[in-house]
Amino acid sequence: MSILCGKDILRTDLLSDEELELILSTAARFEGVLEAGGRLTNMEGQVLATLFFEPSTRTRLSFETAMLRLGGQVITVADPKTSSAAKGESLADSMRTVEGYADVIVIRHPQKGSAQEAADAVAVPVINAGDGTGQHPTQALLDVYTIRKEKGTLEGLTVTLAGDLKNGRTVHSLVYLLARFGMRLLFVSPPGLEMPADITADLRKMGAEVSEGSDLAAAMRQSDVVYVTRIQRERFDDTAEYERLKGSYVVNMDMVRQAKPGIIMHPLPRVDEIAPEVDAYEGAAYFRQAANGVPIRMALLALVTGRE
Amino acid sequence: MSILCGKDILRTDLLSDEELELILSTAARFEGVLEAGGRLTNMEGQVLATLFFEPSTRTRLSFETAMLRLGGQVITVADPKTSSAAKGESLADSMRTVEGYADVIVIRHPQKGSAQEAADAVAVPVINAGDGTGQHPTQALLDVYTIRKEKGTLEGLTVTLAGDLKNGRTVHSLVYLLARFGMRLLFVSPPGLEMPADITADLRKMGAEVSEGSDLAAAMRQSDVVYVTRIQRERFDDTAEYERLKGSYVVNMDMVRQAKPGIIMHPLPRVDEIAPEVDAYEGAAYFRQAANGVPIRMALLALVTGRE
Amino acid sequence: MSILCGKDILRTDLLSDEELELILSTAARFEGVLEAGGRLTNMEGQVLATLFFEPSTRTRLSFETAMLRLGGQVITVADPKTSSAAKGESLADSMRTVEGYADVIVIRHPQKGSAQEAADAVAVPVINAGDGTGQHPTQALLDVYTIRKEKGTLEGLTVTLAGDLKNGRTVHSLVYLLARFGMRLLFVSPPGLEMPADITADLRKMGAEVSEGSDLAAAMRQSDVVYVTRIQRERFDDTAEYERLKGSYVVNMDMVRQAKPGIIMHPLPRVDEIAPEVDAYEGAAYFRQAANGVPIRMALLALVTGRE
Repeated sequence: MSILCGKDILRTDLLSDEELELILSTAARFEGVLEAGGRLTNMEGQVLATLFFEPSTRTRLSFETAMLRLGGQVITVADPKTSSAAKGESLADSMRTVEGYADVIVIRHPQKGSAQEAADAVAVPVINAGDGTGQHPTQALLDVYTIRKEKGTLEGLTVTLAGDLKNGRTVHSLVYLLARFGMRLLFVSPPGLEMPADITADLRKMGAEVSEGSDLAAAMRQSDVVYVTRIQRERFDDTAEYERLKGSYVVNMDMVRQAKPGIIMHPLPRVDEIAPEVDAYEGAAYFRQAANGVPIRMALLALVTGRE
Repeated sequence: MSILCGKDILRTDLLSDEELELILSTAARFEGVLEAGGRLTNMEGQVLATLFFEPSTRTRLSFETAMLRLGGQVITVADPKTSSAAKGESLADSMRTVEGYADVIVIRHPQKGSAQEAADAVAVPVINAGDGTGQHPTQALLDVYTIRKEKGTLEGLTVTLAGDLKNGRTVHSLVYLLARFGMRLLFVSPPGLEMPADITADLRKMGAEVSEGSDLAAAMRQSDVVYVTRIQRERFDDTAEYERLKGSYVVNMDMVRQAKPGIIMHPLPRVDEIAPEVDAYEGAAYFRQAANGVPIRMALLALVTGRE
Repeated sequence: MSILCGKDILRTDLLSDEELELILSTAARFEGVLEAGGRLTNMEGQVLATLFFEPSTRTRLSFETAMLRLGGQVITVADPKTSSAAKGESLADSMRTVEGYADVIVIRHPQKGSAQEAADAVAVPVINAGDGTGQHPTQALLDVYTIRKEKGTLEGLTVTLAGDLKNGRTVHSLVYLLARFGMRLLFVSPPGLEMPADITADLRKMGAEVSEGSDLAAAMRQSDVVYVTRIQRERFDDTAEYERLKGSYVVNMDMVRQAKPGIIMHPLPRVDEIAPEVDAYEGAAYFRQAANGVPIRMALLALVTGRE
């Protein structure tokens, strides 16, 4: 029985180094089986419930694929308007009901803290697929998995994180993980969208070397990994300011050619942050990164249900 | 081949005592296999279509889980806005088309009588998952299953039904079933929301002992089972009247302590009718009741398709 | 490995005669296995993604059933409002992401040409389930399959196509296929909704005998197959004109009795074009036609993934 059996996956900072390594190595093993044309049946006879109180097609399909690739089955609430919550049911009651159907539950909810609340209500394992401005741990895990797979290691790397670092839930979950491996972190963001100071302080306390700036091209010349996130127009009071700034954070082939050879990542969906011409670059890893969500979520599903 | 093979499940009053017993005992047998960690494959290679012309997450997920736990597969229309009905297709035509895909069909529809209409259109078995103010037979069956499981018998019990007994489809399907087993029935409802007189008359004709009142605490002192239903604000012309009354029909721990030890049931979703403090009471059976929907629906799916 | 392995199914005119025959014969073989009570496992361990950027319950359920009947599994986006496209993602990016999850993708999209665009973005096979005013090749294939199954041959038949022949995507995909088999085609439509002249010219160039008219009863007296389509009220500027005309294109039992014995087809959903009394006629093939969508789509899924 694995050390993660029966556990919830709610935040990345609660995972021990040993648990983290177990998740990454299990994902790699599962991916190897699938790539060799093999089939896995770890979850045969098991049912996963994916409860999306906020739509997220990518994350939902990735979890469902993971369960199906392990031989399990899925029940889904994809649309919050058709859920019992619309009839005034509490989250805890909804969870206790679904616990009667499923062996493991994945929840996405617009409200921070709701994943913890959901997990507290039930005995079956709960996996947080994003809770508002809270965490999105499985995205952070697949990001780390991608870096290790692409670069061969997690040690001694320089990683640039660019874009809206203030509001990016994904980035917040991720940097704490990266800091554990002693990475050098470069934060590049428009004024007003910087990484929150308490997080930067936390990371330095963890021993990470952190620099901040606003010159993406300069950061890329030193980086093994460039992680780009979306800058949402609605974060700006001043539209002219948005239009002026957003161009500085678009990765194009000119910048790639002058950068240190490395990989470019993005949690997707992309809008304008990476020029389509970059897709043909061999270091453009964002679609491979999305695909890595399947083995990581397979590992999590199998580990928390004790079926790995 | 079971006596239910090829039959539709549209109303509880059309089930013979023998059929009812077969459903309950099959459900118990399936539940025993699952609880022992076993797997069932009765429905392997079979496809269930769940057609929800009105959203009902709980009922849909319960039926889908039942099919998956039997080794079968599911196709779903969860959202009426995406259905062919939106293009003006008749219910009969929709059913005849889906009959070309599925081996058994579950239908939920806002209009009374529509389940019968749906079943008349096709040769495959149809199960009614609620047709407006009509019936909701699988809810009534899982309620009876719950009482038998929790109390060890269906004979000689006193059951209180509380709340809106006028508009409650679930309660109407249920009381006819309870009356068959010679139960003593106490109806507790606010003025204007009483059990319809024709139903009360029917029940008495069936030999049931029926009392009516408005004092829930008094009824609970005599009852083995308390079945609480929601009182919907929109049933009252006068909001002040609603606010004045609703408190009298909320079950809390004070009432439970003074009551005869027994079980508390609710078809869910609950809003305010049962105080959250009651959840910890061992007789609080409502989430176990919801979970019982799976074995009951497994039994129905296997029996009507001749795969039990 | 079949000649269709790895190919996309985007348009019927790109299918060779050999490929067409392979699809029809594979569908017949699969249907035979299912009718004999057998089970198929060709797609075990495989995942189909059905991406419906425009709702179409019938087509979606038919594809999903096909995949499940082959032992495969399905992930679904049934509602465009919950898709990543709503966040501004390009179709190509959505496809590249889903390619990381699924072994084959079915796409329905409101915009003509989008199926080709989708297929160009990914390496996995893509099947077009309708792209706006473009093509709907699997509907045309199941129509041809139905004619061959019902009439025993595709050679030497006279086929009437009635209704709105101007806007009917289904009919445009179909007539090119029918013309290959040397069928005689009678086009019957209200003024203004005739088959486009370029299509008629194409068909004649292919060697088909084509006649046009507006007398449905007369055409039916010469036809082995009558293919009825919906006339949509919104195609008429003048509602009175619509009301005056639509009656002339309703098939009823009077017309059937005076017609040459044959089959009546309709792509469904039907609204008023075929009187319900016709449903009992043995030549009323439209629900059998809908059911034929399953074996045809089974054949396509198995062939393009190399699992037949």
